[in-house]
Amino acid sequence: MTNPAPLSDLPGYTELEAHATRLSSISIEDFFNTDPTRAERYVSEAAGLRLDYSKQLVDDGSLASLLRLATQANLRDRIKALFRGDHINNTEDRPALHTLLRASDDSGLPDLYQTVLDTRKRMQALSDELRRGTMRGHSGLAITDVVNIGIGGSDLGPRLVTQALTPFHGKIRCHYVANVDPADLRDALAPLRPASTLFIICSKSFRTEETLANGLAARSWMLHSGACDADLAQHFLAVTGNVNAATDFGIPVQNCLPMWNWVGGRYSVWSAVGLSCAIAVGWENFRHFLAGAEAMDQHFHTSDASDNMPLIMSLLELWYSNIIGIGNHAVLPYDHSLRLLPDYLQQLTMESNGKRVDTQGNPLDYATAPVLWGSAGTMGQHSFHQLLHQGQLTCPADFILPLTTHTGASGQHRKLVANCLAQSRALMVGRSLTEANTSLLQRGLDKTSAAQLAPHLVMPGNRPNSLISFDSVNPSTLGALLALYEHRTFCSGQLWQINSFDQWGVELGKEISAVILDRLGNNEIGSMDDSTERLIQIYKYSQQKQ
Amino acid sequence: MTNPAPLSDLPGYTELEAHATRLSSISIEDFFNTDPTRAERYVSEAAGLRLDYSKQLVDDGSLASLLRLATQANLRDRIKALFRGDHINNTEDRPALHTLLRASDDSGLPDLYQTVLDTRKRMQALSDELRRGTMRGHSGLAITDVVNIGIGGSDLGPRLVTQALTPFHGKIRCHYVANVDPADLRDALAPLRPASTLFIICSKSFRTEETLANGLAARSWMLHSGACDADLAQHFLAVTGNVNAATDFGIPVQNCLPMWNWVGGRYSVWSAVGLSCAIAVGWENFRHFLAGAEAMDQHFHTSDASDNMPLIMSLLELWYSNIIGIGNHAVLPYDHSLRLLPDYLQQLTMESNGKRVDTQGNPLDYATAPVLWGSAGTMGQHSFHQLLHQGQLTCPADFILPLTTHTGASGQHRKLVANCLAQSRALMVGRSLTEANTSLLQRGLDKTSAAQLAPHLVMPGNRPNSLISFDSVNPSTLGALLALYEHRTFCSGQLWQINSFDQWGVELGKEISAVILDRLGNNEIGSMDDSTERLIQIYKYSQQKQ
Repeated sequence: MTNPAPLSDLPGYTELEAHATRLSSISIEDFFNTDPTRAERYVSEAAGLRLDYSKQLVDDGSLASLLRLATQANLRDRIKALFRGDHINNTEDRPALHTLLRASDDSGLPDLYQTVLDTRKRMQALSDELRRGTMRGHSGLAITDVVNIGIGGSDLGPRLVTQALTPFHGKIRCHYVANVDPADLRDALAPLRPASTLFIICSKSFRTEETLANGLAARSWMLHSGACDADLAQHFLAVTGNVNAATDFGIPVQNCLPMWNWVGGRYSVWSAVGLSCAIAVGWENFRHFLAGAEAMDQHFHTSDASDNMPLIMSLLELWYSNIIGIGNHAVLPYDHSLRLLPDYLQQLTMESNGKRVDTQGNPLDYATAPVLWGSAGTMGQHSFHQLLHQGQLTCPADFILPLTTHTGASGQHRKLVANCLAQSRALMVGRSLTEANTSLLQRGLDKTSAAQLAPHLVMPGNRPNSLISFDSVNPSTLGALLALYEHRTFCSGQLWQINSFDQWGVELGKEISAVILDRLGNNEIGSMDDSTERLIQIYKYSQQKQ
Repeated sequence: MTNPAPLSDLPGYTELEAHATRLSSISIEDFFNTDPTRAERYVSEAAGLRLDYSKQLVDDGSLASLLRLATQANLRDRIKALFRGDHINNTEDRPALHTLLRASDDSGLPDLYQTVLDTRKRMQALSDELRRGTMRGHSGLAITDVVNIGIGGSDLGPRLVTQALTPFHGKIRCHYVANVDPADLRDALAPLRPASTLFIICSKSFRTEETLANGLAARSWMLHSGACDADLAQHFLAVTGNVNAATDFGIPVQNCLPMWNWVGGRYSVWSAVGLSCAIAVGWENFRHFLAGAEAMDQHFHTSDASDNMPLIMSLLELWYSNIIGIGNHAVLPYDHSLRLLPDYLQQLTMESNGKRVDTQGNPLDYATAPVLWGSAGTMGQHSFHQLLHQGQLTCPADFILPLTTHTGASGQHRKLVANCLAQSRALMVGRSLTEANTSLLQRGLDKTSAAQLAPHLVMPGNRPNSLISFDSVNPSTLGALLALYEHRTFCSGQLWQINSFDQWGVELGKEISAVILDRLGNNEIGSMDDSTERLIQIYKYSQQKQ
C-alpha cells in the first residue's frame, strides 16, 4: 500500500489551516448558543462508551475538512489492513494483530487464531487453579500472591487493569515489579512469603535488562528461603517468545506461555501478558474484558468515519497538534481505580507515535505525538488545574467519567461526578472581568478592592475538552476504553504516515548504558563527553566511600 | 516594591532572542568539543546536591544574558523580600514564609518563629508517643496505622516524603487518602482496624470538599466499629487554621495543630502538614529533612547569581519556555522511592506559575509555567522515552540521580545509574545516519536493508537536559531537593512578574460544582450549556437504573 501525498500536502490540510484562522476569534460557548442540536450531534456511542466532543473547538465546517483529510489519507483502507493482518509494521515486516487477541472468530487468520485460543485455554486453566487454591508452592502451601515482573508493555497494561478492576478481585493478590532499581522488588517482596508466592516473568526476549535483573533477584530470594532448583517450577511462570532463555533461567517449558512477534508490547495486555489480571479477576471477567475490546474493534472496523469514535478522537488530536500547534494532551480520569491510565496511555501514544520519519524513512516537517499527561480527578484540581484554567498554555483534555461507584457510597461519589462536569464546563465558559467583579462585590469587597482583584479571577475559557462517560468501571467498559485509545493511536499514526508499531528510538540508550555499566565497574579511561566522564568518576568515588 | 519593566521589554530579553537565533544551528556536543572546561564550569553544588547543566543548550554568552535579565528583574531584592516576610503574595496581602518553617533562627520574625517552634515541639511529642507505642486507641490497643486525609498541598508533600524515606520508616504505617472518590478511602481502610487507627485531617479551612467528605466517612467507620463520640479524641487529629470547624467535627482543641495563612498549601510539608512524615520516620529524621531544606535556603539567599542553583534552573526554564518556545518540562527521578516527585512538582510549579496576569492584574503576552510531567526511571525508558529521543517535540529534562541504594543490592543499582547517565548522554549526542547505517551493517544486515532501515534509527540529539546527583535519598538531601524546586519556582514567578502564591483559577470550578451537585440531586431544569445539561440527565438516568 503506497503512502498518499505527505500529510501537509493533502487538500484537507490546507482547508484546516483556513478553519483555524476563522475559528481563532470564536468561542466554543457561542457554538452552543447558535446551534441547539450541537450537544446531541457531537456525540459518538459505542461498546458502552459515550464520547461527547461538543466542547471541542471545532464546528461542522472544520469537522467536515478533518473527515475529508481522513478520506484523502486512505484511512478506511488502512483500518482494513490492520484487521486483515497486513505487515503495517513495515520496518519489522510484521502485522500488528492485537485485535486478533480479543476476537471471537478467526478473522481470516485461522492458524494464528488457533494459537490464541490455545493460549486462552492455558490462561483460564492457570487462573482457575490459582483461584481455587489448588496451586501449591514447594512446601505444599497454597499460592496466595502473584508477582508480575516485566516493564513497559509487560507491566503498565496488566498493572492498570488489575488496579482498575479492584472490586472484581478474588483472594489472590497480584503485585507488579518493573524498575531496575532494587527498591522496587524489595518493597514488593517485603510482606510476602516465598513458599506461597508465584512469579510471572514477562519479557518477549527474556533479555530485558530490568526484568532479568529482578527475575534473578526473585529467584535468589526463593532459593535462599529453602527452595531448591527443582522447586522453582512451582514458583515461576514465564510469558516469553524465548523459551530457551526461560528454561536456562530454570523455568520449565510447560511453565512458559507465548508472546508473539505480531503483537507489540504496548498492545499486549490482551495476550498471556494479561495472565496476572485473569488471576486477579477470574477468567469470566477477563473474557468480558476481551469482549469489551472486541465490541470497540467492531465499531472501529465498521462505523462510518463521521461516527467513528477512535477516528474522531484522532482527528481532534491532529487538529490540535498540527493545525493549532499544541504539544500536549491531558487525560483526566475521574475515578480512583483509573489513576494509572495516564501512565498507560503515555506508553501507548508516545512510544507509538513519538516519531520523526515517515514509514519510508523520510523526515517529517509536521508535529507528531504530543506529550500525554494527567492524573485522577479530583486530585489534579488541587494541583495543576490552576494552569489548565489560567495558564498561558492550552491543554486539550479528555475527561473520563464512570457514572456509578462500586463502593456503595453513591452520595460521596456524586460529588466526584459534579466536580468532573464542573471542570469540563468551567474550562469552556471561563469567567469574564465583569463576572469576576460582580462575584467579588457580592462577597462584600469594596469597589476599589474588587476592581483590583478581579483581573486575577478572570479565566479566558474556550479551553477544549471531551468527556467520555460510561456506566461503571467494569471489565467490559475497561476493555472498550483501552481499545478506543489503541485505535485512536493507530489512526493518528496513519494520518502522520508513521509506523506506530516500532520503537527504534529506545535502542541507543541501551547501547550506551551497556558501555557505561562496564565503565562504572572498571578503571578504564573513556572518551565520552566530559560531563558523562565526570559523573562516572563521581559515582565511583561514592562507592568507595561506602 | 515596584515591578521592573515587563519581562519582554527588559534588555536581556532581546539579547536572548538573538542568542537563540545564533544557537539554533549549534549542537550541545560541539560545546564540549570546543571547551574542555565546560563540564567543570556548568555545575552548581549546594546542600549535598550537584547540578550539572552542561548538557543544556546554553553557552557563556546566553548564560551571561540570562544572568543580566535576572539583575534587570531585581531578583536579588526579591529573594531578600521573600525571606524577610514581605507581602509578596500581594493578591492575598500575605507573606510566603515557608522558609521560616525550616529555619534554625528567628530570621527577624520572632513572634512567628515562636509559633513554629511550639508546633515543632508538639509534632515531636506526638511522633515520639506514637512511635514508642504509648498512644492508644479507645479500646486500649496501641495505634499502628496513621491515615492522613487531605488533598493537594495537604497530601502530595507528606505522601511523597513518606514514600521517599521508606528505608527510614519505623513500625507505624502511614497511609494517604485524598480523592473524593469513595474508592480511595475504601481501599485505604480495607486492611485497617479502627481500634488501632489514627486519622489526621489536614485542611486549612476545614471545609475542603474532598477532605471533609473523607473525614466524615472515616468518622462513620470509626463510630460503626463500636467507638462512641467521646472516643474520637483518641483517633482524630486535625491540622487546620479553622479550629472551630474541627471541634464541631468532634476533634477537641488540644488535638488541633495549626496551619497558618502565611504558608501556602503547596509549600506546607515543612509545617504540621508533615506530621505524618515525622511519625513515619521519627523526629530526628524530620529535623534532618528541615535542615536539608534550610541549607538550600541559605545557598539560595546568599549565593551569587552565577552559582545559585535554583536561580540557574529557573533561568533555564525561562530560556526554554519563553525564548525557545517549549511548553513542557520532564522530571525523571532515577529512584523508585522518588516516583511521586513529578506529581508533587506538578502542583508546585503549575499551581504556582500557571498564571496569565502579572501581580498588578495586567494580562501577559509571554509564556509562563510549562506542563511538568515525568516518571521514575527506568520505567519511562520503556514508555515515553521513544518520544524524548525521536519525537518532533523537544522536552527539556531534569534527571535526578541518587548514587547509592539503601537496599544493599549495589550491583543491580549500578544498572540504574548506568541507564540514567546513558539517557542523559543519548539525548544529547543522538545518532547520525552514518552511525545508524554502520551499526546495522555490523549486525549483519545487507547494504540495501541497512540503507532502508537506517533513517528510522536516526536520532537528532541536541535534546537538552540537566542531571542532579546526590549521595542517596535521605532526609537531608530530600529536604534540599524540594527546597531547590520551591526556589526555582519562586524565581520563575518573579521573572514572569506573577504572584506564585495565589490560585484564583481553581475557584470557578468549585462554584460550578456546587451548582451541579445540587442539580444531580433534584429535578430542577437548568440553563447551563446543552452538553452539561445532557450529562446531568444521563447521570440521573444511570442512578435510577441501579
